[in-house]
Amino acid sequence: MKTKAIFFHAGCPVCLAAEQNVAKALDPSRFDVEVVHLGKDKSRLREAESAGVKSVPAIVMDGAAFHINFGADIEALK
Amino acid sequence: MKTKAIFFHAGCPVCLAAEQNVAKALDPSRFDVEVVHLGKDKSRLREAESAGVKSVPAIVMDGAAFHINFGADIEALK
Repeated sequence: MKTKAIFFHAGCPVCLAAEQNVAKALDPSRFDVEVVHLGKDKSRLREAESAGVKSVPAIVMDGAAFHINFGADIEALK
Repeated sequence: MKTKAIFFHAGCPVCLAAEQNVAKALDPSRFDVEVVHLGKDKSRLREAESAGVKSVPAIVMDGAAFHINFGADIEALK
């Protein structure tokens, strides 16, 4: 079974670079990667915060949040 | 041809989690992942800094540095 990975971003340049280089680099045979734009899809903010996301871009894998560089504080997206 | 990805870390718990979940999650058909422990292999510090690494864990792909969470400032490893 594939592991779910959720890449949270907000469309910022740092986010797009991370999406291209990290989220899209994951092994597709092992991971189902979902990309969520928190600036547009605010209904997912609570889920992101529950997973420990403090800033975007971040990727949540196996319930753990990994922040990649720094694009925007999650508070700024609310 | 595979793209080279270098995962720089320093053995910290945050580093090990990122190695397990991010570095080892990359598609092996597209990436050759090298893992470098900067605490032990100080000869690679200059290379890491040249690639823009400011803290570990970080992964350098296509010449761009992506910092994952925060384990240690690179200055602390010198």
